[in-house]
Amino acid sequence: MAETDRTVNVGLIGLGTVGGGVAKVMARHRDEYRSAYGIDVRIKRACALEEERARELGFEGDAFTQNWQDIVSDPDIDIVVELIGGEHPATEIFEGALGSGKHVVSANKALLGRHVERLAGIAAEHGVQIRCEASAGGGIPIVNALEHALVGNEVLTVAGILNGTTNYILSRMDAEGLDFAEVLADAQRLGYAEADPTADVDGFDAASKVAILSSIAFHTRVTTDDVFMEGIRDVSAADIAEARSMGYVVKLLGIARNTADGVDVRVHPTMLPADHMLAGVNGAMNAVYVVGDAVGETMFYGAGAGSFPTASAVVGDILALADAISHNDHVQAEIKPFGRVLPLKSIEDLSTKYYIRLAVEDRVGALAPVVDVFARHQISISQISQLADADEGRCSVVFLTHKASERDVAAARTELESLDVVERVASVIRIEDVEAWSEGAEANE
Amino acid sequence: MAETDRTVNVGLIGLGTVGGGVAKVMARHRDEYRSAYGIDVRIKRACALEEERARELGFEGDAFTQNWQDIVSDPDIDIVVELIGGEHPATEIFEGALGSGKHVVSANKALLGRHVERLAGIAAEHGVQIRCEASAGGGIPIVNALEHALVGNEVLTVAGILNGTTNYILSRMDAEGLDFAEVLADAQRLGYAEADPTADVDGFDAASKVAILSSIAFHTRVTTDDVFMEGIRDVSAADIAEARSMGYVVKLLGIARNTADGVDVRVHPTMLPADHMLAGVNGAMNAVYVVGDAVGETMFYGAGAGSFPTASAVVGDILALADAISHNDHVQAEIKPFGRVLPLKSIEDLSTKYYIRLAVEDRVGALAPVVDVFARHQISISQISQLADADEGRCSVVFLTHKASERDVAAARTELESLDVVERVASVIRIEDVEAWSEGAEANE
Repeated sequence: MAETDRTVNVGLIGLGTVGGGVAKVMARHRDEYRSAYGIDVRIKRACALEEERARELGFEGDAFTQNWQDIVSDPDIDIVVELIGGEHPATEIFEGALGSGKHVVSANKALLGRHVERLAGIAAEHGVQIRCEASAGGGIPIVNALEHALVGNEVLTVAGILNGTTNYILSRMDAEGLDFAEVLADAQRLGYAEADPTADVDGFDAASKVAILSSIAFHTRVTTDDVFMEGIRDVSAADIAEARSMGYVVKLLGIARNTADGVDVRVHPTMLPADHMLAGVNGAMNAVYVVGDAVGETMFYGAGAGSFPTASAVVGDILALADAISHNDHVQAEIKPFGRVLPLKSIEDLSTKYYIRLAVEDRVGALAPVVDVFARHQISISQISQLADADEGRCSVVFLTHKASERDVAAARTELESLDVVERVASVIRIEDVEAWSEGAEANE
Repeated sequence: MAETDRTVNVGLIGLGTVGGGVAKVMARHRDEYRSAYGIDVRIKRACALEEERARELGFEGDAFTQNWQDIVSDPDIDIVVELIGGEHPATEIFEGALGSGKHVVSANKALLGRHVERLAGIAAEHGVQIRCEASAGGGIPIVNALEHALVGNEVLTVAGILNGTTNYILSRMDAEGLDFAEVLADAQRLGYAEADPTADVDGFDAASKVAILSSIAFHTRVTTDDVFMEGIRDVSAADIAEARSMGYVVKLLGIARNTADGVDVRVHPTMLPADHMLAGVNGAMNAVYVVGDAVGETMFYGAGAGSFPTASAVVGDILALADAISHNDHVQAEIKPFGRVLPLKSIEDLSTKYYIRLAVEDRVGALAPVVDVFARHQISISQISQLADADEGRCSVVFLTHKASERDVAAARTELESLDVVERVASVIRIEDVEAWSEGAEANE
């Protein structure tokens, strides 16, 4: 048995899906952590509103409180685990815990996506750490990889499937040819989507996660509000089928690139080559692609949500801190963020290929004014095809562009919408240039 | 700029492919490590046989030596990086460095796959660490994930594509329908395979890596000699094509499972379902699948070899040590391995499905004695199909079995080879039960 100097006390705030998982995983493995690593760690006290839930998880008497201040003010507690989510009182919990010299472990992407700079500053000032492995990618050890194993690299790109609900929906739309609304309803029935699905399907959740990951990867300030965001509501079964026929798969990606023109960070439906590793990630699974200048292309795959997978990440963070504390080693303070503040690149300056589907009148000459609009906006077309889904007198026409600027495409879109022959611009989906993710990688030299 | 207390001195032994990459990555990023993390780290001295090579990399005068003892005995050096490979003098370098209180970073899978227990014991005794991220999976941060982020889990399975040469060969055999010898010759010409390809194609390299990974994952002793090993020389284009038609892909996997019957650890060609994440890993890329009881299924993908990817892993290890040293923090000593010694499961006790291809006489009644042999050895057949590759008077017949024991299959094989109607047993390939990898995962409850 490995040696230990003292017991590490954890205060757990929140006993919901993730908090319950953390309590169970730590109870089940406590002896093993002691024997294998010499880490003696226990949850001294848990905080939740429901006493019944706490009792089921083994927290009674002194080990239970309904008041988070009891945890933050407990001088015996070394690590506060915040798993209630949202901005309040999570902010106050962070401030109280860090201010009294306790490390904080959290899965709170909404809070960290917006306020990590200020909170990390408080942690640095008080000589403690914030750890947030579970806040991006659930159980996938991506934060740890960026902060440690890949730290010798200049990270060029972080891009991933960061939301399980939307990946589940897109995967089923692809496999079964169903439309968005149908699959969403089914996903809600099965518990894969919330009753109010906005945070997932409109991209907010993925935007928080890509903000956290790009801040860490590029050592620069990226907040959720900096992320360009577009959800999957407008993606249709027809687009997905057409994408397949052209060798592409549609995924909701969070993409962050450290380019010469600034940090390019965005969440939107993306067409990816069907043989790309991310294209094979289906169902509710998540995956994060990281390109470093030395390591080249890497990918990290796993469950992005769920009780036990997320608990795995939280417990990993707890044990990293507990390892040092239980051996009376110094735990390094949070590094004051950020090493640098890089400019952000506007979505308008994005240059990529586009898939554009128009519902147009089905008559001779209808395409002429459309093609003219593209030409006047410097958008070069590589392929035009008519889809089989035509109604009488109407048809869908898909245009693939060569690389074009987002600004030009947006202007062209407005003009197309005003044309008599165009009923509507049914969809505009960016085709991601995955080769560009590796630009500057030494591994490719 | 983050604060630093002192410069960390590294001694680099070996300036080959990986050593040269390490020197370049560290020189290029030195300022960034200082500004972003407050880590001031330099290669104080490098050891190589070729003075010219050292000079090209910037090591001259006092910064260069041809004698590794100059590095091991230098009191200013904090970390010795051993990148010469092989057993000697690598063993003496480890012993000398650890014995004089220096941490060792190494990519030496041959050495660590056999002697990690003894070397880690020396490290523990002298209060220093051995770090070996680059020894398994090249640039993929898999050791770090197992030792840190996933440490809250009981790891159930580690299985991966751990050798780029064989994956390159099998991928091309699959894509182009070529036979092993043809692709091997081409791979040698292109530099993807060594002139003597034994270490790769016969499984030794993958066996060392799976020994290292399973030791770490299961906290138990697994050496390279404990790993059952079978290479890819006998895999034919016909087998790969037949596998595809049945929904399988053939990969050389290193598999380690912590089962109730002991640790099952083996390297052999494996048929995997074509939609499994590992089945999509092609070319020289590597990937490691890890199933933990809390996190469920995860996968880590990247370059398993090459100058810069491997350097990424080595530099990550150097920086982890340098981070503590440069801030005057205590660096934890190696944990004396192992927390436990689990029994090993013999390959004879493996129970799985098999793909068996026989070259038999093409005449009525030829199958009767074959089927009789299977029956007498309790091997139940789920499918029999004749391949299109028949010569005159001969044909290939493929048998798929239900789960059968390796012992029974081996006995049946011997008997089949003695039958008059059987020209030869052309191939026996195990079909991996990937569902069993997750048995016991809480995530699946």
